[in-house]
Amino acid sequence: MRLRPAKPLQTTEWLNVPEPVTLESLRGRVVLLEAFQMLCAGCVSHSLPQAMRARELFSKSDLAVIGLHTVFEHHTAQGSKEALAAFLHEYRITFPVGIDAPPDGRGLPRTMTAYQMQGTPTTILIDRQGNLRKQKFGHTQDMLIGAEIMALLREDGSPVSGQQQAAADNGCTHDGCAAPTQ
Amino acid sequence: MRLRPAKPLQTTEWLNVPEPVTLESLRGRVVLLEAFQMLCAGCVSHSLPQAMRARELFSKSDLAVIGLHTVFEHHTAQGSKEALAAFLHEYRITFPVGIDAPPDGRGLPRTMTAYQMQGTPTTILIDRQGNLRKQKFGHTQDMLIGAEIMALLREDGSPVSGQQQAAADNGCTHDGCAAPTQ
Amino acid sequence: MRLRPAKPLQTTEWLNVPEPVTLESLRGRVVLLEAFQMLCAGCVSHSLPQAMRARELFSKSDLAVIGLHTVFEHHTAQGSKEALAAFLHEYRITFPVGIDAPPDGRGLPRTMTAYQMQGTPTTILIDRQGNLRKQKFGHTQDMLIGAEIMALLREDGSPVSGQQQAAADNGCTHDGCAAPTQ
Amino acid sequence: MRLRPAKPLQTTEWLNVPEPVTLESLRGRVVLLEAFQMLCAGCVSHSLPQAMRARELFSKSDLAVIGLHTVFEHHTAQGSKEALAAFLHEYRITFPVGIDAPPDGRGLPRTMTAYQMQGTPTTILIDRQGNLRKQKFGHTQDMLIGAEIMALLREDGSPVSGQQQAAADNGCTHDGCAAPTQ
Repeated sequence: MRLRPAKPLQTTEWLNVPEPVTLESLRGRVVLLEAFQMLCAGCVSHSLPQAMRARELFSKSDLAVIGLHTVFEHHTAQGSKEALAAFLHEYRITFPVGIDAPPDGRGLPRTMTAYQMQGTPTTILIDRQGNLRKQKFGHTQDMLIGAEIMALLREDGSPVSGQQQAAADNGCTHDGCAAPTQ
Repeated sequence: MRLRPAKPLQTTEWLNVPEPVTLESLRGRVVLLEAFQMLCAGCVSHSLPQAMRARELFSKSDLAVIGLHTVFEHHTAQGSKEALAAFLHEYRITFPVGIDAPPDGRGLPRTMTAYQMQGTPTTILIDRQGNLRKQKFGHTQDMLIGAEIMALLREDGSPVSGQQQAAADNGCTHDGCAAPTQ
Repeated sequence: MRLRPAKPLQTTEWLNVPEPVTLESLRGRVVLLEAFQMLCAGCVSHSLPQAMRARELFSKSDLAVIGLHTVFEHHTAQGSKEALAAFLHEYRITFPVGIDAPPDGRGLPRTMTAYQMQGTPTTILIDRQGNLRKQKFGHTQDMLIGAEIMALLREDGSPVSGQQQAAADNGCTHDGCAAPTQ
Repeated sequence: MRLRPAKPLQTTEWLNVPEPVTLESLRGRVVLLEAFQMLCAGCVSHSLPQAMRARELFSKSDLAVIGLHTVFEHHTAQGSKEALAAFLHEYRITFPVGIDAPPDGRGLPRTMTAYQMQGTPTTILIDRQGNLRKQKFGHTQDMLIGAEIMALLREDGSPVSGQQQAAADNGCTHDGCAAPTQ
């Protein structure tokens, strides 16, 4: 199977991080990219809490979790960096969030267009080599996203760092089972 | 790391399956073993629905999902095959469920004792080679169990069958992304 | 409107209470009667927790909350007093529960038949004078049952005891609002 | 008990309604007033959905449900009418919402100050005569708010319109029980 490289993120600003995030800079890690809008009810109730659970569960050295604010409606309400910053603060979202670059004229933001996203939420997984491996509009079950992330983490025999090793193996040996970490 | 083989299941009866299930017969597949009691509220609200979601999500050729009814209290109420059968029917639980063998005298059922389970629910994962890899008393997050199952499925470069391949890779190629199956 | 007296409960045993409960003995109080089966999934997940919330919210001098175990299937599994007692213990149900009397021959239990219940859960409200005022098969919203109970409590200008007075009026006077009790 | 009249609402704009709402104009109806901020997570997940359920459950001739946008932080993000309008649209909130008037200088908005609200969400009930009867900061159970609303609806022997009558009495007469409306 020929895989497709994930297209570059085209952003104007990043929050929760000192400098802009590029997919290149995340090479070697699996990336969970959550495209959302702050006034998208399904994003607020499902996909963003899910992304935060993923951030909590996997180690930062294995999985990068980033958000992309793809504003394609209600620009006055949700189009400013200040509005997004307030939203991230109130919802305790601490992973890096980029603001998708607006188009030259009318239309959808640039990364959203490049990825041909159908709307928000859109959940994207990118493998350690930078290939696009999942793009899903709408809700994804927690068990499925957990399995998909781990499948990419374990691909090509990649070593997985401590926390995930623990996740996959609670230290059950001939001597017994260590207390589970989760 | 030296892994520990999962001890044999000691059961008196099996429901939802024509003949008794042994761990040997499941060799080559990852096993999710859910130990429960039909009157355990946490089992009913969390761990059994989770096991059913796992049954739905993963293919039967990769993952075996089985239950173990480890009755250690309220024997009159939940100790009969008829009571368990009625419970499984009402809760639409369709995977095989074994009844843990009672002890010779007083005490806990035999498999529960052999595994040194602390109570119900206890969630157990066994790898394709029959080693015990997770044993957890209490609630496990869906995202974690999904990741743990996939980690074992992908271990040793095992090929994973269709559905999981799809789960891990929604068919995104140079030509686009296939519609997600979930 | 001519109201219809609630028919007598025909029971064989009562749990969680030293002696049998009759509707006559509850006259003067509004009665929430929850008909259920211990293996009815909708009863376990919705109607019994709702009855427990009602028990918590309203005062015992205003509202009587009672259960009725109307076993019409899986008699071996759920037909014994021991099974029901174990269930009530595990689910922390502390209000009185009667066991609906079995029919002479085949058929539904006697109270279930007298009330022409369609199945479980069935939620019933009886007013202070003993009239049947609500009978609903299936799920009822919490906000609705709260409103319905209060409507009956306030009927005929009945005085409502302390807790409900507080519920209806958090003590807001010219001097301010007292801290809410809930 | 001497009741305290609810203080006037001090607002700059109203959405979802052609002209400004005053408490005087609602006299004769019970009022559920939900004070919120669009970026308040607890308002979005609990109190606003609850207010919408109340709007659905009770008739408009008995209960007025109104919102009050009491912006006391993140003014840039949530301080504009456009931002609020977009929020109401996305969350399908259709009851009237007023924008609490900003203070002359620094400080909290005017209605919020007059009511001495501690924050958002704040749930307020006003009786048919315009008296403040409940003011609660934080989460209120559905069953409780249902009971509190009904207590005020039934106060002073007020006739309650069709839907609530049905809510309180599913038409059970000597001839049987009419099918429940909910």
